[in-house]
Amino acid sequence: MTGPEMVNGFTGEHLSAQPQHIRELIDRRAHLLGPGYQLFYTNPVEVSRGSGVHLYDSAGNEYLDAYNNVVSLGHCHPAVVDAVTRQLSTLTTNTRYLQADLLDFSERLLATFPAELDRVTYTCTGSEANDLALRVARAHTGNTGIIVTRNAYHGVTAEVAAFSPSLGPASPLGPHVRTISAPDPRRQGDAVTDLLRAEIRAAIDDLRRHGFGVCALVVDSIFSSDGVQPFPTDLLGVLAAEVRAAGGVYLADEVQAGFGRTGAGWWGFGRHAVVPDLVTLGKPMGNGIPVAATVLRHEIGREFGRNVRYFNTFGGSNVPIAAASAVLDTITREGLIENAREIGAQLLRGFAEIVSGYQCLAEVRGAGLFLGVEVIAPEDTGPDRVLAQSLVDDLREHFVLVSASGPDGNVIKIRPPLVFGTEDAALLLDRFADAATRVLPA
Amino acid sequence: MTGPEMVNGFTGEHLSAQPQHIRELIDRRAHLLGPGYQLFYTNPVEVSRGSGVHLYDSAGNEYLDAYNNVVSLGHCHPAVVDAVTRQLSTLTTNTRYLQADLLDFSERLLATFPAELDRVTYTCTGSEANDLALRVARAHTGNTGIIVTRNAYHGVTAEVAAFSPSLGPASPLGPHVRTISAPDPRRQGDAVTDLLRAEIRAAIDDLRRHGFGVCALVVDSIFSSDGVQPFPTDLLGVLAAEVRAAGGVYLADEVQAGFGRTGAGWWGFGRHAVVPDLVTLGKPMGNGIPVAATVLRHEIGREFGRNVRYFNTFGGSNVPIAAASAVLDTITREGLIENAREIGAQLLRGFAEIVSGYQCLAEVRGAGLFLGVEVIAPEDTGPDRVLAQSLVDDLREHFVLVSASGPDGNVIKIRPPLVFGTEDAALLLDRFADAATRVLPA
Repeated sequence: MTGPEMVNGFTGEHLSAQPQHIRELIDRRAHLLGPGYQLFYTNPVEVSRGSGVHLYDSAGNEYLDAYNNVVSLGHCHPAVVDAVTRQLSTLTTNTRYLQADLLDFSERLLATFPAELDRVTYTCTGSEANDLALRVARAHTGNTGIIVTRNAYHGVTAEVAAFSPSLGPASPLGPHVRTISAPDPRRQGDAVTDLLRAEIRAAIDDLRRHGFGVCALVVDSIFSSDGVQPFPTDLLGVLAAEVRAAGGVYLADEVQAGFGRTGAGWWGFGRHAVVPDLVTLGKPMGNGIPVAATVLRHEIGREFGRNVRYFNTFGGSNVPIAAASAVLDTITREGLIENAREIGAQLLRGFAEIVSGYQCLAEVRGAGLFLGVEVIAPEDTGPDRVLAQSLVDDLREHFVLVSASGPDGNVIKIRPPLVFGTEDAALLLDRFADAATRVLPA
Repeated sequence: MTGPEMVNGFTGEHLSAQPQHIRELIDRRAHLLGPGYQLFYTNPVEVSRGSGVHLYDSAGNEYLDAYNNVVSLGHCHPAVVDAVTRQLSTLTTNTRYLQADLLDFSERLLATFPAELDRVTYTCTGSEANDLALRVARAHTGNTGIIVTRNAYHGVTAEVAAFSPSLGPASPLGPHVRTISAPDPRRQGDAVTDLLRAEIRAAIDDLRRHGFGVCALVVDSIFSSDGVQPFPTDLLGVLAAEVRAAGGVYLADEVQAGFGRTGAGWWGFGRHAVVPDLVTLGKPMGNGIPVAATVLRHEIGREFGRNVRYFNTFGGSNVPIAAASAVLDTITREGLIENAREIGAQLLRGFAEIVSGYQCLAEVRGAGLFLGVEVIAPEDTGPDRVLAQSLVDDLREHFVLVSASGPDGNVIKIRPPLVFGTEDAALLLDRFADAATRVLPA
């Protein structure tokens, strides 16, 4: 039941130390759920209720949720509850019937993008959105080669898993996939953009040499699974230019960075001053209702649309669209992008202060409410996954939920709901400082 | 904006004949939605409300819905509205936290299956469920070859589209995919099972000869896109035995036939007295909330689970599970499987009477509330797609919604919500008889 190694995954090693009711739930999972399921934390968390920035277990313990980005508006936001209840009571059908609501929402969603990105196709998950985007890109370019970063994650369909190296060695990359480094200014210094330009040129050459040609560069705009890398912001424009010059397209995966998360506008690519050819959206789009999308330039979709039909029964159906509409409204009405910027800045300052006190904390980096704190070994400057996990686990024992990320699993990943307030941020910083005192060498 | 040909697809040919508000909606779709979207009917239907077995347009016209199987409990069933509202107000998170509700539902879902099928993995769509099932099957068998029926449809991910021949010639089958005939007793006579046994043996030989080996036989248990073929019921057992003898597995796609649709139990494969190795579920599972699943024998998933993790953010999350739980309860509480059997029998008798009056209606066939009426040409016995479309369109003009299916698009597909009552069935039969009078040569 342990399965493949995962950052912050429950390994079963401490199964016997779990309380009786937790052991029972774990045992039931093993006997009911299919292959590949994993739990978070050395001591898994049982949850039974959520509200705002908090999760509660069935004993009534309150957890500060500084991790879950699906519930971007906070757990159980009434605007989404109301919109979904109303829609479920009115109509749930699909896009093969004409409906004004779908089109009204599409107009409002597309208005958050640069004008070139003028069409949207709905799916249910980010995986499906990336899967479709690649089918479209292949039809448009006539090529198959894909370039991603070294520890990228883009989803779980067979197609998308083949270009998601973070799934690990047992989930092989496709023969048509090449990886380049993610940016890492702390290690790469000022030459990040030059280094990656050289790498993408080499990847392009190699794809051509093998006859695949260049179909798409696929990049998570915040490099989440690569360890959260918000800088440098001139990078994506340079990489996009290289891939376009080679006949490929640039797909911005905004499943992690999108919907105001970075505090610098609606979309993570905006920080890089570049306009992608395709953009994929997911997780926070419906605040807990499955809904995702592929946004694209109409000319990119032309070849696919001429020949292939695409019907996703639930994609663009009424309830997901009602939820997404409520999310879009609420982000605007509650000023959540500004909030992400302000609270993100508060967290960045606070973490910088904590980081400065420990040799083992190499740096904090972030954009809006997406931050990474890098943990290194006491004796050298290499990544320290074990120490990072100890911090994550210590915080969990003190009722604060974060996780870890990066190719070495040594970057604490902090990604609270966008409604995180200044007092929530202060509490998170306090608890983190306390955890550091307990866990890290002075 | 016309795109590839689809059975009962709006072609744009009659665009100028549409009312102003319909033309506007169609125009907005063309300028907002991505590639591949299609509408139903020669004159598309605009919908704004649903209730029970009815859909309503914004002018207040009432349509008898004899087609939509997602809303299997009827449009806007209060049990689903209540369950989803309650869950959305309580908790929406994912399977990396322990939650009893997920396990309680899994137990109840698995109890509807033969004992061998003892594990479930949740996804959001039938496409994702089939995509995952194939990844699991490949890991288990070590082979890649897939066998499907000649006009099969299993979904829209890149992986699954490659074994969905009904998507048409512009969506090519994978090199590892072979097709066999669907059953068609009217044309094939008594030798159906022998014929298909010979075909699957040839397909197996050919897959081996090309080095793919045999991974999976994937079959929709009611052969929906092959034109609705409920007979003969000894067939799937024979095909499963052949594929297993060759080292492959049998995946029953129950996205169409499942959840009581056939009136003969929960699952369509049950009519064939065979136990699959994997089963995929979808459409009606959440009555409008996106939820789907792969059910499997635990030993089939072992190899995949040992090496690969699978996390679907929304798959198995709280709201989809709450919806699915309400659906499962309601099917039992309202006796909808028995209703599907009884009303299905009423429809079968009624259509048989209508069919007997027209040379152009070759036969009606069905199981429970899934029926097909085959339309043939007046002059010969070949399929008549145009006449079938005329019937579908005439019914639509008289406020009855059905569609068409089959490789030749000549089978009227009748698939109402499971709550269809005896008076709804009588009305459908009346309207169909009237349409036949208007459309078919006497």
